Amino acid sequence: MSNEVKPSPRERLLEAAATLTYRDGVSIGVEALCKAAGVSKRSMYQLFESKDQLLAVSLKEQASVYVTTLLPAADDGRSSRERILYVFEQVETQAKAPEFRGCRYLAVQIELKDRSHPASRVAHEVKANLTAFFRAEAERGEAADPDLLARQLSLVFDGMSARAGIQADDLTGLVAPTVRTLLDAAGVR
Amino acid sequence: MSNEVKPSPRERLLEAAATLTYRDGVSIGVEALCKAAGVSKRSMYQLFESKDQLLAVSLKEQASVYVTTLLPAADDGRSSRERILYVFEQVETQAKAPEFRGCRYLAVQIELKDRSHPASRVAHEVKANLTAFFRAEAERGEAADPDLLARQLSLVFDGMSARAGIQADDLTGLVAPTVRTLLDAAGVR
Repeated sequence: MSNEVKPSPRERLLEAAATLTYRDGVSIGVEALCKAAGVSKRSMYQLFESKDQLLAVSLKEQASVYVTTLLPAADDGRSSRERILYVFEQVETQAKAPEFRGCRYLAVQIELKDRSHPASRVAHEVKANLTAFFRAEAERGEAADPDLLARQLSLVFDGMSARAGIQADDLTGLVAPTVRTLLDAAGVR
Repeated sequence: MSNEVKPSPRERLLEAAATLTYRDGVSIGVEALCKAAGVSKRSMYQLFESKDQLLAVSLKEQASVYVTTLLPAADDGRSSRERILYVFEQVETQAKAPEFRGCRYLAVQIELKDRSHPASRVAHEVKANLTAFFRAEAERGEAADPDLLARQLSLVFDGMSARAGIQADDLTGLVAPTVRTLLDAAGVR
């Protein structure tokens, strides 16, 4: 459209960082990021302190999309069991895309190794929020041990996204039975 | 000991590749690998075609340690249920080490992104062998659906090692209840 607003250099850099680190990993160079964004290195360093900072901001800005895509709407009237299963259905759907490489917030932490890296910190927080969602639903669904169930669901979430991301498993017929078994054992009906 | 055999340049390179890629990731440079091994770049390229090749051989040679550490001895007289639980106990023990960063064969595949990379291929095969172990024990333990159980156990294995590797979970009280629930649901007593 003729009146479409052209993304700013900042937006283009954040988009390039999100796309390229997901596809190629966090070791992607500054040159490649700037080239993909069509921004000079000088401009990049005027907008972001460092590549690490760019990655961290990019992950933070992607978090709202991540949450909106994965989590059900608040108070949608469904049971906790259904709301938990919904999250896993979303990942299963995402995993069918050829460009799927698993959860970016898990991958970034595995790739960076360093927990104190600003991008690792952002990723850690986003994942902790997901576990908190599971914890709240487990509590609401009267799980025998809401903490345990939340940790189990996080483990299944990361396991499935990792395995689908490396194409070790296409997830067909795997996730729903696994999650249901854990929900049953916790007494979440 | 005075009569200890000094490791050859080849062995030192393989050891450096195993240690440094696990600690710092596969993007570690050739310079750093050669420096850690005390081998010139020229010698490295006489021994290995490329860094990719060095990584692949290093992963392949580590596989026997991986298998020996994780899997129970063949025909140890224990039930399938016990033999499966043994694998998870091993990972739980490994995860307590401060240098633990999860399963190297999962990390390599997540980091490389490229399934056709020689190191990715080796890692894929090692993980497929673990799933085959679970599959054989599931069958022997008369699981209702041995394929499903083997995939579930692989998922839990990767989820737990990933989460412990990024220090999202210390695994205490998590793994055994999860695996037992899945074994119970599959009818493996």
